[in-house]
Amino acid sequence: MGEVPFGDPDDDSLHEECGVFGIFNKPDAARFVALGLHALQHRGQEAAGIVSHDGAQFHVERHSGLIGDTFTRQSVLEALPGQTAIGHTRYATTGGGGLRNVQPFFAELSSGGFAVAHNGNITNAMTVQRELQRRGSIFSSTSDTETILHLVATSGARHFNEKLIDALSRLEGAFSLVGLSPKTMIGVRDPLGIRPLVLGTLEGAAILASETCALDIIGAEFVRDIEPGEMVVISEDGIESLFPFQKRRPRFCVFEYVYFARPDSFVEGRNVYEIRKRIGAELARETKNAADVVVPVPDSGVPAAIGYAQEAGLPFELGIIRNHYVGRTFIQPGDAIRHMGVKLKHNANRRMIEGKRVILVDDSIVRGTTSQKIVRMVREAGAKEVHMRIASPPTRSSCFYGVDTPETSKLLASRMTIEEMAEFIQVDSLAFISIDGLYRATEEPARNPHAPQFCDACFTGDYPTSLTDLDAADNVRALPVLAGNV
Amino acid sequence: MGEVPFGDPDDDSLHEECGVFGIFNKPDAARFVALGLHALQHRGQEAAGIVSHDGAQFHVERHSGLIGDTFTRQSVLEALPGQTAIGHTRYATTGGGGLRNVQPFFAELSSGGFAVAHNGNITNAMTVQRELQRRGSIFSSTSDTETILHLVATSGARHFNEKLIDALSRLEGAFSLVGLSPKTMIGVRDPLGIRPLVLGTLEGAAILASETCALDIIGAEFVRDIEPGEMVVISEDGIESLFPFQKRRPRFCVFEYVYFARPDSFVEGRNVYEIRKRIGAELARETKNAADVVVPVPDSGVPAAIGYAQEAGLPFELGIIRNHYVGRTFIQPGDAIRHMGVKLKHNANRRMIEGKRVILVDDSIVRGTTSQKIVRMVREAGAKEVHMRIASPPTRSSCFYGVDTPETSKLLASRMTIEEMAEFIQVDSLAFISIDGLYRATEEPARNPHAPQFCDACFTGDYPTSLTDLDAADNVRALPVLAGNV
Amino acid sequence: MGEVPFGDPDDDSLHEECGVFGIFNKPDAARFVALGLHALQHRGQEAAGIVSHDGAQFHVERHSGLIGDTFTRQSVLEALPGQTAIGHTRYATTGGGGLRNVQPFFAELSSGGFAVAHNGNITNAMTVQRELQRRGSIFSSTSDTETILHLVATSGARHFNEKLIDALSRLEGAFSLVGLSPKTMIGVRDPLGIRPLVLGTLEGAAILASETCALDIIGAEFVRDIEPGEMVVISEDGIESLFPFQKRRPRFCVFEYVYFARPDSFVEGRNVYEIRKRIGAELARETKNAADVVVPVPDSGVPAAIGYAQEAGLPFELGIIRNHYVGRTFIQPGDAIRHMGVKLKHNANRRMIEGKRVILVDDSIVRGTTSQKIVRMVREAGAKEVHMRIASPPTRSSCFYGVDTPETSKLLASRMTIEEMAEFIQVDSLAFISIDGLYRATEEPARNPHAPQFCDACFTGDYPTSLTDLDAADNVRALPVLAGNV
Amino acid sequence: MGEVPFGDPDDDSLHEECGVFGIFNKPDAARFVALGLHALQHRGQEAAGIVSHDGAQFHVERHSGLIGDTFTRQSVLEALPGQTAIGHTRYATTGGGGLRNVQPFFAELSSGGFAVAHNGNITNAMTVQRELQRRGSIFSSTSDTETILHLVATSGARHFNEKLIDALSRLEGAFSLVGLSPKTMIGVRDPLGIRPLVLGTLEGAAILASETCALDIIGAEFVRDIEPGEMVVISEDGIESLFPFQKRRPRFCVFEYVYFARPDSFVEGRNVYEIRKRIGAELARETKNAADVVVPVPDSGVPAAIGYAQEAGLPFELGIIRNHYVGRTFIQPGDAIRHMGVKLKHNANRRMIEGKRVILVDDSIVRGTTSQKIVRMVREAGAKEVHMRIASPPTRSSCFYGVDTPETSKLLASRMTIEEMAEFIQVDSLAFISIDGLYRATEEPARNPHAPQFCDACFTGDYPTSLTDLDAADNVRALPVLAGNV
Repeated sequence: MGEVPFGDPDDDSLHEECGVFGIFNKPDAARFVALGLHALQHRGQEAAGIVSHDGAQFHVERHSGLIGDTFTRQSVLEALPGQTAIGHTRYATTGGGGLRNVQPFFAELSSGGFAVAHNGNITNAMTVQRELQRRGSIFSSTSDTETILHLVATSGARHFNEKLIDALSRLEGAFSLVGLSPKTMIGVRDPLGIRPLVLGTLEGAAILASETCALDIIGAEFVRDIEPGEMVVISEDGIESLFPFQKRRPRFCVFEYVYFARPDSFVEGRNVYEIRKRIGAELARETKNAADVVVPVPDSGVPAAIGYAQEAGLPFELGIIRNHYVGRTFIQPGDAIRHMGVKLKHNANRRMIEGKRVILVDDSIVRGTTSQKIVRMVREAGAKEVHMRIASPPTRSSCFYGVDTPETSKLLASRMTIEEMAEFIQVDSLAFISIDGLYRATEEPARNPHAPQFCDACFTGDYPTSLTDLDAADNVRALPVLAGNV
Repeated sequence: MGEVPFGDPDDDSLHEECGVFGIFNKPDAARFVALGLHALQHRGQEAAGIVSHDGAQFHVERHSGLIGDTFTRQSVLEALPGQTAIGHTRYATTGGGGLRNVQPFFAELSSGGFAVAHNGNITNAMTVQRELQRRGSIFSSTSDTETILHLVATSGARHFNEKLIDALSRLEGAFSLVGLSPKTMIGVRDPLGIRPLVLGTLEGAAILASETCALDIIGAEFVRDIEPGEMVVISEDGIESLFPFQKRRPRFCVFEYVYFARPDSFVEGRNVYEIRKRIGAELARETKNAADVVVPVPDSGVPAAIGYAQEAGLPFELGIIRNHYVGRTFIQPGDAIRHMGVKLKHNANRRMIEGKRVILVDDSIVRGTTSQKIVRMVREAGAKEVHMRIASPPTRSSCFYGVDTPETSKLLASRMTIEEMAEFIQVDSLAFISIDGLYRATEEPARNPHAPQFCDACFTGDYPTSLTDLDAADNVRALPVLAGNV
Repeated sequence: MGEVPFGDPDDDSLHEECGVFGIFNKPDAARFVALGLHALQHRGQEAAGIVSHDGAQFHVERHSGLIGDTFTRQSVLEALPGQTAIGHTRYATTGGGGLRNVQPFFAELSSGGFAVAHNGNITNAMTVQRELQRRGSIFSSTSDTETILHLVATSGARHFNEKLIDALSRLEGAFSLVGLSPKTMIGVRDPLGIRPLVLGTLEGAAILASETCALDIIGAEFVRDIEPGEMVVISEDGIESLFPFQKRRPRFCVFEYVYFARPDSFVEGRNVYEIRKRIGAELARETKNAADVVVPVPDSGVPAAIGYAQEAGLPFELGIIRNHYVGRTFIQPGDAIRHMGVKLKHNANRRMIEGKRVILVDDSIVRGTTSQKIVRMVREAGAKEVHMRIASPPTRSSCFYGVDTPETSKLLASRMTIEEMAEFIQVDSLAFISIDGLYRATEEPARNPHAPQFCDACFTGDYPTSLTDLDAADNVRALPVLAGNV
Repeated sequence: MGEVPFGDPDDDSLHEECGVFGIFNKPDAARFVALGLHALQHRGQEAAGIVSHDGAQFHVERHSGLIGDTFTRQSVLEALPGQTAIGHTRYATTGGGGLRNVQPFFAELSSGGFAVAHNGNITNAMTVQRELQRRGSIFSSTSDTETILHLVATSGARHFNEKLIDALSRLEGAFSLVGLSPKTMIGVRDPLGIRPLVLGTLEGAAILASETCALDIIGAEFVRDIEPGEMVVISEDGIESLFPFQKRRPRFCVFEYVYFARPDSFVEGRNVYEIRKRIGAELARETKNAADVVVPVPDSGVPAAIGYAQEAGLPFELGIIRNHYVGRTFIQPGDAIRHMGVKLKHNANRRMIEGKRVILVDDSIVRGTTSQKIVRMVREAGAKEVHMRIASPPTRSSCFYGVDTPETSKLLASRMTIEEMAEFIQVDSLAFISIDGLYRATEEPARNPHAPQFCDACFTGDYPTSLTDLDAADNVRALPVLAGNV
């Protein structure tokens, strides 16, 4: 679908909501966290926060904008002293909200301070929140992550780790989280392991990060993935590994391979770039290939297009050029201009297109509006035929595990057949990889329909957890009761 | 002491921490609140907030800076729709803290939303806070006001008003507060009535404000003072008056008359300007007057100086000129410049001083550093004699009821005799009004030592409430556990 | 008229457009200039600039806003190294303009760099500008001051000082200016000496300033006024005094005494506060005095009111309280609120007003709108009678010498008799000091109609210079050709 | 060299300084200019300006930052009314300078207003400037472009176009410029045509732009290149073409093909992407190819790498991943971190590198520091061999025609042999395309040494114009005389 930066008015992508990073016992910890978050910027561009602990006190900074614009200022970094720090970068799902919803969240508990940064989404957060409010808890944000803090605060367990386990046991959904207490840094993945979380090390200091690319940026070594259902407690005494939750069969998010993760990352033992190339190759095998050139929709379609071209024996060309200089809030063309189909982000590279049969490779189709524009642009540049190939099965269902998906009814594939979609985006042919083809690309023989190896709910509607809040939606207030700049 | 704006590096004044204002059932309510807070700006210049309710939802805006710089922007006012709104302006006691500590505070309780703005200080807030934390409450600020919200949230009482009464009954100290629930605006004064709170009306809409000058600015009428220990509940059905707390003999803060309140306000039935003039007249009667001219330290010393001059039959002259154009963070002269005694705020009006015996009238002496500078300046302008007259008794004890006083040991009067003080500030004579003289100026015959009519703890050390947090100070963490930009 | 800060929507005052300050051969020169400009802030609050010279290079900073907000930042002061610096603070007459019009102006001439800061107004600037444009000069601002630079740049004279004299000889109007060349600091007053300029000294370093209050703030000594028509050239060799222009009879601006200058300044040998008090006393002698109380319109009416009250034997009271906390761009009340007569700046001190016959003392009446509001407010506070006394003759004509006056037709006194004005502002009586009374207050026996001792054109229409641009106005483009943020 | 955004501390690229765009007689002209400049953002990211003319008046806005952050704000666009507008985007060569140096420049001449935006560099600007200063011209910037304005202003010619021709005839160097007078839009290319300039049309409105990609973004049609030495005058009467300068053999900048121009642009009739691929293919033919994979240094090395891989029959892989989320002023790692070789922009895609013989393709080597880092990163990812192939000849000489090149002595190729360079960047082999190979890629048979078809001075030192300022450099002041925020 061609990933897009925050604030684009024509944004038609799926957005991962979060990346997390923590480092334990390393001088200037916050600077390392800032670098790690920079490497994870693709997982969330709207705002970020870092909490450090200097041995005595916690320090917190939260700012809107890119890491490179905010957590690079001397004044901000100096306000984050200490040898241990965790951080979070996020894409906001709902408008507004201000800095209240920016993580990590922090609470002063009777047992001491605790900060937490969370990637994923709790599917029973609102239900739990209402219960907590009834017993007197006051929420200062609308984030599901704050629910975790309150569950810890009100847990009857004795010791902090037990409180945390007690709290997390109450949760449904996806959570890969990094926590900071005065003495420990903690990493946890939910029992299904929907979101990634890896352990690394730099000169003896332990690191937790959403992806390995955040280890690479600081020259740290990858140790292993945190396992689904695992909780690691990192302290001066070393790393303790616990499996406190009921064991379940893992269901890692397959879309991380398709689109979210960075191509240079290894997640769950697999290199993302390589899987994308293999998806392209599977796609080439599954679909017809009478064409002159393979053109990716940049940047996200590039690896699959390379794989496709190699498998199909067709030339790979940059037939679409992407302009990366997009501002924070881009040009909103007036009505007089809008109808012209302004090409802010992509332009056809006419010489590679004109008179040719073009295979366009993109990662997914969400609403279909971007695909429509891209195809129109390629046709206006003189393509003889346009064949769209999509590196994922049709996206038919919303994600409730930390991805900002439009409601199901807005998903093109939920309301059209593939033929109708081809007509809608005006291509000569349209093909998606099959669900089994996608699994094969990950080196699984095929999808096991009885025990799927991944979470693929967005393609299949097969949600691996209950969706308590959604089911209770009739009782749920439509609007938050508080709006504003707080 | 010559009042000074926020941020002055040489600041040697006492600061009231808060002003509150609310209006019920008036279109564009937030605009009226902004005007009311502007009139109360002398009670706090660092930051302000407004919460409005539009019938369905609460809206909140909090900003650093003067009302006239922040709550005048169209975008801010438009973000505060509704016919009911409350606001707060504050002086920060502790550095940093960011917007977390800016009031009003808001909580979504199981019974609905509740916002509160508070003038005063709770003397058992930390003790109660620790208790609440032990049972699982999470605090998002370091403000004593948040304690009120948590007490309401965790109250076992059934109805909202009962919860609030239950909560407030747990508190010690000074609280004049304005609250906002979905259907009501509430005003409460603590049983001693230490801080002011008045009721006004504008075209049928009820108003609560710290001082009457905030009614004047919008042309509202003064109805009456909220009484000590009174709680008024304003709803569409009218104004209900309750006295839910144990009755106590009122002890209004006498320093409000000396310095805090605006001279054009009427508080507790008395005109502030008039009392200040009477203080000046008492002072003239109590002290010797062989002089040529009476000169106020502007602006706060002016009314007392006028009263003094009239009583003493001496000419009143502006022998010191004040520069009101002081920026947010003023010129911090380099070391090379500092020793010259730069006169940022005050300048001697040499022609009125030279060769004269000058009576200088100021409202109080805190650390004495400002008085030192003023006297040196007057001497350098050629005064033959300088006699300092202070419109309050010596300030010997810290305030724990909402005034930012230096610790007792920094108060000049706590460590020097009057003779030593005169020597320290280099005057030919120094005199303070007597405590009974001060009471006489308020039209009390004298201070009743067995049941003082006012809170005068800063002069007498006679605190009208227990100071639970202070007594427990050994157990209290010196530093907040969380610092930063949140 | 009650002076008002910049940006007030109801602003009905006259504004001096400039204050200038320079210091020669003093380490950290720019810091001293910043302090001097702070003391001159009443002469212009919109923007300010400083140019320093570090022996090799010129440095310039120009910023919008108060000195205390801009020229206090470490980064700004550090960008102004050097032992010599000049500065300027201004009130903008025309909207917009951005920083292009902020002085000092600087030009790199073939003879070296030259910076200039100017208080006053050149009455033939546009005429000269068109002539210069015809020969190829390019103007980068719309300020008359830039004309001076171009005249210097294009002068055929040989040496720099001659070029400057050549340039200034071409000018009509008012100019008190401070200039900076690589080796010298220069001060000049036009032959009439319309605007003030004084010479001071601090530990051997020479200082030029608009008023003596700017010497006081840094503890500098007043040496003497720069004389009308004098040019002083300050260099390492000392101070050279030249009188290069045709000699004329001086005509200092009498309104500087009435309103512009700070009361603690001495200008042209006279103390401003004392003259204002004498104006009040003259006014008391000239007008009837059956009243209970004398109340100034603060702050500018205070000295005259004190003089009036002393002469009339009536009590002086602060019957109107002024709120100095006004933001940069104040609350623009919505239409619903505006009609209520919001009192942003002034409030009646009801207790001093109610039931009394009040003499209100103000410095001048411009459009009359402020007077109307003040009087209405005083009446609503219960005054039995209101008698307005004005410390200047009726303001009937525009100023073309550096004061931002409304066009003549907007001046109340230009279109009404005194009776009509009294009716308009709704007072029981209205009286202005006579022109001879005003002269007497300055210790002149009376105005010499054949050779007036002052410029009093705003009262008399008797302009001491030709008004070339105004006379050529038919040929003048109404709008500047360039608008925008440059 | 891997292009880098503005502000990167490790920036080791060459920077084009400017892109220009103008549109005549189209409603909302400024919005189209903003879009055009967005498409030209790669030619300069530091600041931009737009001047519009609304039939009566000129309007100007200049801002620091990306077009998408500044010229998208409603307030900015509304300040630019009119049907004709020109704009400019720039990379700043010298630090500081503020907005003074941001184009377009504007002057009010006696003949009317004139605005000009310039891509290129005038090599005798300072010499002419000193001459103009001697006759009295005052410069308000340090930009060579202002010199053009002053030459026009002081020209003795009668009509505006003649004045402009007169002025331009005085200039040496490179200038592709767009001008705006009240009735006309003018485009000019210097006689050598060093920088590009194209003519386009949108629904009848004429457009001038640096590259065709700026036509594409608004759906405009490409008409033709403006020819070297041509001046087009666009008015309501149509487009007039003049050739007022002495005819010379054209010398278009060959580096535009190598790096500056966007790959989707057609410049001088050639498609940039295609030429880059042909350069890659020539390079493959000229150099040995025993390798496993071809990896581009992204993004600029990508087209040449594709061409190389296709010619060499080797797989093309994204072995290096680029992070496009770089903030305005990126993370300046503390000393403790810096030595670790932080990978802010690029990361090795280990799976594509490990154990392989890698051919790295980059566009050029400037200082060599980036190449060093890239190679070290690729080696650390496990490459068996690293062979660097450069898509341009060694860069040995500075550019004086509008590119920000380090001084010659900092250019790696100016002080090392190719073998030394290979050693310096630690590659197994290093090869540059030959100068004739480069010419062949542009479809010239070879470089004509007697009359080179392009400006290739950066590779050959053969400058096509005299370098007057450089030759006079002994007389030139090293530092500008004025620094600061103006």
